[in-house]
Amino acid sequence: MSGGGGAMESSLIAKHLLLCCLFLVASALAAVAQAKTVHEHWDISYQFTHSDCVRKLAVTINGGTPGPTIRAVQGDTVVVTVKNLLMTENVAIHWHGIRQLGTPWADGTEGVTQCPILPGDTFEYRFVVDRPGTYMYHAHYGMQRSAGLNGMIVVAAAPGGPDAEPFAYDGGEHDVLLNDWWHKSTYEQAAGLAAVPIEWVGEPKSLLINGRGRYNCSAMASDAAAACNATHPECATQVFAVVPGKTYRFRIASVTSLSALNFEIEGHEMTVVETDGHYVKPFVVKNLNIYSGETYSVLIKADQDPNRNYWLASNVVSRKPGTPTGTAVLSYYGGRSSPRAPPPTSPPAGPAWDDTAYRINQSLATVAHPEHAHPPPPRADRTILLLNSQNKIDGRVKWAINNVSFTLPHTPYLVALKRRLRGAFDERPPPETYNHTGYDVYGVQANPNATTSDGLYRLAFGSVVDVVLQNANMLAPNNSETHPWHLHGHDFWTLGYGVGRFDPAAHPPAFNLRDPVMKNTVAVHPYGWTALRFRADNPGVWAFHCHIEAHFFMGMGVAFEEGIERVGKLPEEITRCVSKKGGQH
Amino acid sequence: MSGGGGAMESSLIAKHLLLCCLFLVASALAAVAQAKTVHEHWDISYQFTHSDCVRKLAVTINGGTPGPTIRAVQGDTVVVTVKNLLMTENVAIHWHGIRQLGTPWADGTEGVTQCPILPGDTFEYRFVVDRPGTYMYHAHYGMQRSAGLNGMIVVAAAPGGPDAEPFAYDGGEHDVLLNDWWHKSTYEQAAGLAAVPIEWVGEPKSLLINGRGRYNCSAMASDAAAACNATHPECATQVFAVVPGKTYRFRIASVTSLSALNFEIEGHEMTVVETDGHYVKPFVVKNLNIYSGETYSVLIKADQDPNRNYWLASNVVSRKPGTPTGTAVLSYYGGRSSPRAPPPTSPPAGPAWDDTAYRINQSLATVAHPEHAHPPPPRADRTILLLNSQNKIDGRVKWAINNVSFTLPHTPYLVALKRRLRGAFDERPPPETYNHTGYDVYGVQANPNATTSDGLYRLAFGSVVDVVLQNANMLAPNNSETHPWHLHGHDFWTLGYGVGRFDPAAHPPAFNLRDPVMKNTVAVHPYGWTALRFRADNPGVWAFHCHIEAHFFMGMGVAFEEGIERVGKLPEEITRCVSKKGGQH
Repeated sequence: MSGGGGAMESSLIAKHLLLCCLFLVASALAAVAQAKTVHEHWDISYQFTHSDCVRKLAVTINGGTPGPTIRAVQGDTVVVTVKNLLMTENVAIHWHGIRQLGTPWADGTEGVTQCPILPGDTFEYRFVVDRPGTYMYHAHYGMQRSAGLNGMIVVAAAPGGPDAEPFAYDGGEHDVLLNDWWHKSTYEQAAGLAAVPIEWVGEPKSLLINGRGRYNCSAMASDAAAACNATHPECATQVFAVVPGKTYRFRIASVTSLSALNFEIEGHEMTVVETDGHYVKPFVVKNLNIYSGETYSVLIKADQDPNRNYWLASNVVSRKPGTPTGTAVLSYYGGRSSPRAPPPTSPPAGPAWDDTAYRINQSLATVAHPEHAHPPPPRADRTILLLNSQNKIDGRVKWAINNVSFTLPHTPYLVALKRRLRGAFDERPPPETYNHTGYDVYGVQANPNATTSDGLYRLAFGSVVDVVLQNANMLAPNNSETHPWHLHGHDFWTLGYGVGRFDPAAHPPAFNLRDPVMKNTVAVHPYGWTALRFRADNPGVWAFHCHIEAHFFMGMGVAFEEGIERVGKLPEEITRCVSKKGGQH
Repeated sequence: MSGGGGAMESSLIAKHLLLCCLFLVASALAAVAQAKTVHEHWDISYQFTHSDCVRKLAVTINGGTPGPTIRAVQGDTVVVTVKNLLMTENVAIHWHGIRQLGTPWADGTEGVTQCPILPGDTFEYRFVVDRPGTYMYHAHYGMQRSAGLNGMIVVAAAPGGPDAEPFAYDGGEHDVLLNDWWHKSTYEQAAGLAAVPIEWVGEPKSLLINGRGRYNCSAMASDAAAACNATHPECATQVFAVVPGKTYRFRIASVTSLSALNFEIEGHEMTVVETDGHYVKPFVVKNLNIYSGETYSVLIKADQDPNRNYWLASNVVSRKPGTPTGTAVLSYYGGRSSPRAPPPTSPPAGPAWDDTAYRINQSLATVAHPEHAHPPPPRADRTILLLNSQNKIDGRVKWAINNVSFTLPHTPYLVALKRRLRGAFDERPPPETYNHTGYDVYGVQANPNATTSDGLYRLAFGSVVDVVLQNANMLAPNNSETHPWHLHGHDFWTLGYGVGRFDPAAHPPAFNLRDPVMKNTVAVHPYGWTALRFRADNPGVWAFHCHIEAHFFMGMGVAFEEGIERVGKLPEEITRCVSKKGGQH
C-alpha cells in the first residue's frame, strides 16, 4: 500500500492491526492463564511400612512410600514445600529429569546444589517443568533414596503446542514405578559398603511395582516371620484396569537402587513412544529393558481375552538374579475374572539375564521421533573420556573415574563457586582422559594410583561437550556391569554405543548425528562404551553419575560447572551448612 | 606497728611484703602451670559392633562404643574436636555433670544450647572441668544416646586443694560404665514411640558393663543367630583385677536408656563416698541402686579369698525385669583362678525389683560429707511444683509436666533468647504448679487438656529456686515408675523425698537444710516426690528432664533460662540451623 491510501483503506488497516493485536494479546493471556502453579506439601518422616509385606522402617512422604505422583502441564511452576520431620537426619530431594533452567539451586543434590534440609526445617523447591514427559523424584543425600523417598513426575504436553504427543491413545494413562527393595536399613548398607572388607548390599529382597511387592513370609525364620504379613494392604498387588479395545499409555520409571530391570506385560506388545521426556521413533517390543533413572512411555492395546488377567512382570537383568519376579496384574473391565485374581499362568521370566546383545539392540533402536528430532551440533568443542574402574583405596573397595573416586564436598559446589570460596574443594581438575590406547578393558587392572577427590570439570559456557563412558572389567575377573549414568540439568544426545575399547579416531565418524534421541540417563553396557553430547548452556553445577545408589556412594560420579557467573542470587536456605569462616572447616 | 616505726622496721615490713607478694605470684603461677588443656579428637561414625555378641550398627567414637574415658584434673580445660562422619545424620554431645560456667554454648544439648553438628562438619567443644568427680558424656539429640554414643569423664581433684578426697584408697581406681542395650535401631524405637498405637521400646535385650554384655545366641532363630557371635572379642567379659589387701575406688556411672539398676560386687561391701561429683558421708551397702544419669564412687577392700573370681552384677530394678543380669568379673592378682574364669557361683540377683522402700532408704542415706557440706540457702525465692503424668495427645501417648508435654524448639533457646528472636518458641510460660490439693496421684487421671509446648521457665538471675518433682500413676492402673531427673548447668541440693502427694505447707519444714548432698541427677520414686533447690546463677539456658531416653522423647522435660543478658558472644558454629529470617520458619 502506498503512502497516499484513502481513509477507507486506512480504517481497514487499523481494524486489521487492532484485530491482530487483540489476537496476540489474547494468545499471550491464554498462555499465561494456562501456566499454573502446582503446590505440594510434604512431611518427610520415618514410618513402618510393608512394601513387600515385611515390616520395614522407611523414609516416607506424608506417611507413604512411594510418594504422591506430581502431575503438571508443561510450563507449570511446581512448588514443593518439604518439611523435614526426620528426628536427627537431614534430607534433600532431586527432581530427576527436570533441567532447572534458571533455578540450579532447586536441583536437590546435596553437596552439589544445596546444603541438606535440617530436621524441623521447611524448604521450598520451586521450579518450572518446561518439557512434557515422564520423570521422577527421589532423595539425593547419602543413600536415602533406597530408604523409600521416591515418586513420579508426570508432565502433560501443553495442548496443541509444539510438543504435543505424536501418538494417540484413547484409553488413558497408567503410571508404573519400578523399584528394588532391601530389608536392611540404608545405614547398614552404607556402613557395610564402607567397611574393610566390604560388605556388599547383595541382591534385593523384592522387586516392587508402585511400591508393592511380595516377600515369601513362609520362607522366613519363625521370629522374623512375625514381621511379615502377607495380607497387609500395603503389599496388596497393584491392579491396572483396562477397557477392552482401548489403547493405553503406560508411563514407566525405574528408581531402583541397583537392579537393571526387564518389564513385560504378559500377552501385550508394547510400542515404545517416549523416553526421559523425549518422543522416540515408535518401535515394538515384547518386553522393555529399563535402567535405574530411566523412564519410558509405551502404548499397549487392550486386545486380548478380557476374561482372564495378565501379569505385569519386572525381572532383574545384567546381574545374575537372586530376586523373585516383581508382579502386578492387568485386568479387563467387564471380563469374567476378578480384578485381583492371579492370572492362570506363571509370570514372564524375561530374557536371559546375561543377554547383553539383546539390551544393546534396544539401546540402538531408541532414536528420536522424526517429527521431534533435535539434531545435535555437528561437532564437539571438547571430548572427555571417562573410564570406570573398580579400585581399592586405603583397603576399601571404590569405584573410580579415570582413577579418581568421586567424593562430594561439604560446601555445595554451587555455593562455593558462586561465592568464590577458596579451599572448599579440590581445585585441580580431574583427568580428561585415561590411557585409551593401552588399557585392557577385559582384564583385571591394578590401577595402583587411584585417589579420591572432589574436583570438578569446568565447562566453557555454551560449549559443546562430548562424553564417552568407557566400561571395563571390575576387580573380579570376567565381570563388567551395566552402569546407568544420569546427567543433571541437561538432556544429552545419545550418539553411539559400542563393545570393547572406544577409539577416538575410529568410532566418532559412526556417531548417529541424524536422529539421536535425547535422554538424561543412559546405560553403558558391560565391556562397552557409550558416547553422548550436550551443550553446556545451563548455568549451574551439575552432577553426572552412575544411578546405582551403592556405586555413586563408592565414588562413581563427576560434576560439571558451567556459566556460574550467570547464576542468579542463591536462596539463603541452600547455604545453611556453609561456614562463615570459609568453604572448608 | 605504730605510724612512727624506724627504718629497720620499715625494711622488715617491705621484706615481708615482698616475700608475701612473691609467694602469691608463685602460687598463682603454679596454679596456672597446673591447669592444662586436655585434647580429644573424635570421629563419629556408624560401625558394626558386638557389644552383647549380637552384631548391631552403633554410633561410635573413633570406631568404638562406649567412647574413650576423658581424664582430666580439676581446673583443666577440655577440648573435644568432634568430626561428624555420619552420612546423613547430625549429632550433639552433652557433657553430663559439667556445669559449663561461662560456656553455656558447650553444653551439647540440641535445641537448647546449640544447633546440631552437620555431617562433614567439625565442631569444637571447649569447657573447664571446675570440680573433681565422676561424670559422663553422651549424645543429646533425638534418641542418639541409645545408639552407643557415650562414655565417662573422670576429673581428679587438684592435689592438696580444698576439694581433695576425704578418703583414701591404695589400690587405684576402676571405671564402671553401666548401660542397657537393644537390638532395634533407635530409628525403629523412635518411630514406634511416635506411632498410633504406641509401640513401646520394651525391656532391654542386654545389660552392658563397660560396653560388654552377653546375649544368649542359642536362643535366637537360626537366621538371626548368624549375627550372634558368642566369642566375639567385643563382648568378652570385662575383668577388673585387684591386688589382695588393697582398697580400690570404683567409679560407677549409669548411661542407661531406660533401666534403673542395682549394682553389686559379689562378696565385697561397698562404701559410698561420692555421687555426681560431690563427696558423701560414707555409708556401706551390699549393693548400690543407680539411676540413669547418676554417678557414684565406692570403695571396696580386696579382702576376700584371692583364689576365686567374683561377679560384678547389674540387675534391673523398679521395672519388672525382662533382661538377664549384666556381668563382669573381679579377679585377684596372684590368685589361683584364671582372670577370665567365671566365678563358681551364680551372679547376684539384686534386691526385689519392686522394693521401693529399699531404694528410698539409699536416697535418704546419701547426704553430704561433713567436711564438704555446702549448706543450701535457707529459703527459696520461688517454688515450682512439677507433676508428671502420662497423657494422650492427638491419640499419641505422651509424658507431660503439669499437663504440658515438652517439645524442643527448632532454634535453640540460647540463640533465640540471646538474639531476641521473636516467635522461635512459645513465649507463654509453662504452669508453675498443678492442682496440688486435689490431684489423686494414686489413680488413673484423665488429664483431658494436655498440650504440647516449647515454652520455658525464666528464672531471676541469682534467685533461689525450689523444684518439687511429683510422681503419680501412669495411664495403666497401679503403675508408677521411677524417673531420674537431670539438671543441666547446675548441681542442686536434694532437700527431701516423700511418698504420696507433696504438701507445700506440711513438708518443707522437714527438708534437710543441714547436710543435703548436691547432685545433678535425682530419682523421683514411684508415687513419691523429691524436692531440690538450686541457685539460678549460671547464665544460660538449661534443660531439666527425665533421663530415660524414651520419656524425654515423649515430652518429660522442661527448660530454665537465667541471666541470658550475661551470656557472652555465641560461637557462630552453634547457630547453623538458625534462619536469617527469624526464629521460626
